[in-house]
Amino acid sequence: MQFETILSPLLLPLYDLHGKTVVVIDILRATSTICTGLNTGVEHFLAVSQPTEAIEAQKKGYIAAAERNAVKPEGFLLGNSPFEYLNKDILGKKIAITTTNGTRCISLSNNAYEIIIGSFLNLNAVAKYCINSKRDVVAFCAGWKDKFNLEDTLFAGALANKLAGKIEINCDSTIAAIDLYKSAENNLFKYLKKASHAKRFEKLGIKNDMKFCLQMSIYDIVPKVENGVISLKNL
Amino acid sequence: MQFETILSPLLLPLYDLHGKTVVVIDILRATSTICTGLNTGVEHFLAVSQPTEAIEAQKKGYIAAAERNAVKPEGFLLGNSPFEYLNKDILGKKIAITTTNGTRCISLSNNAYEIIIGSFLNLNAVAKYCINSKRDVVAFCAGWKDKFNLEDTLFAGALANKLAGKIEINCDSTIAAIDLYKSAENNLFKYLKKASHAKRFEKLGIKNDMKFCLQMSIYDIVPKVENGVISLKNL
Repeated sequence: MQFETILSPLLLPLYDLHGKTVVVIDILRATSTICTGLNTGVEHFLAVSQPTEAIEAQKKGYIAAAERNAVKPEGFLLGNSPFEYLNKDILGKKIAITTTNGTRCISLSNNAYEIIIGSFLNLNAVAKYCINSKRDVVAFCAGWKDKFNLEDTLFAGALANKLAGKIEINCDSTIAAIDLYKSAENNLFKYLKKASHAKRFEKLGIKNDMKFCLQMSIYDIVPKVENGVISLKNL
Repeated sequence: MQFETILSPLLLPLYDLHGKTVVVIDILRATSTICTGLNTGVEHFLAVSQPTEAIEAQKKGYIAAAERNAVKPEGFLLGNSPFEYLNKDILGKKIAITTTNGTRCISLSNNAYEIIIGSFLNLNAVAKYCINSKRDVVAFCAGWKDKFNLEDTLFAGALANKLAGKIEINCDSTIAAIDLYKSAENNLFKYLKKASHAKRFEKLGIKNDMKFCLQMSIYDIVPKVENGVISLKNL
């Protein structure tokens, strides 16, 4: 079982996803938020590229959720903060969501064997899923506007670390991710304070979102993507 | 003074090089080999894209040097091993060189204010040069066929670490590079044994090249690139 890490969407063309399990990672905050929503009881998420598509989906009974540059654009009921998705009002609802980085990676991965959603919130469940599936794993970091980012890389490292002994690593990105994770694991929040995204969050007053997203394995779920629909079905 | 790190040539479009000092890094082995040759007394290197161009340059009095996939193609007098460039026979000679990764990054950087050549062999000299120039610095890692690699990233981290206190870091790649370097600095050779390139070298029986390239600051030179010509002039 091979494990590879894609550090930025721009590096995707270098990797062959066929037959592999792709774990899409956007820790701050898309994949953490999606996990939170599904754990609360959202029926499913529909990942869309543009805010206009999310608005359009309202006609089909979806709630429109959007984030651009870490804020919720005007006219949307929901944004990309996990706290919004703890509210029981969303139970059984369908949500069309678009975010700056994360949802794009989902559509970019469509030639993989399967796409699952990874976050620290469901790390153990994702690791167990990968071990059971026995397929090659690709950790796909969404980054920030195509740049490498620390938090997604740390998650890739945490996942690879959980799979240690069961995976073969011939990928420098994965080696780096594991070593970065090991140097940060004792206090992820403190470590990530120096990250560019943390500074962005501090300016926006959403530091608590970051704390929330760094909780370890509080959900025992593995969201799976099929034709843009993200749900807990078929698992 | 800002410091940024480009982890792969594919990420270059995300960075603005105008007005900045670009440090091209291809530790195994182009930039180590170029530093070695210039330190030995090569008059200058001409970085070219294709082996045919290196052959063509012979008409203008150049020695043709080439490397593809870590080996020297047939018909070339020189390859990409630093040991070949310790030979006093090359003193005063002009060498046209093309390599899989490194020489390409030089031509990709042509809108920078200046391009210099970095390797562990001239780390201190490069750091001093950057401090004195007071310009923003971009560490440009050549990687391996556009993929992230450990050895180039470690050098970027080593350089940023040398400049600590004098540079501003708002770049997650640089933070990661520094932390990786810190976890590896006590024994770079041992650390890099797990890297994909090291395994490639081991198969090819050129492990000694790697040991050579990991020597610290043995040359007090800063090669500079102008119109593809790499020399020690104008510094």
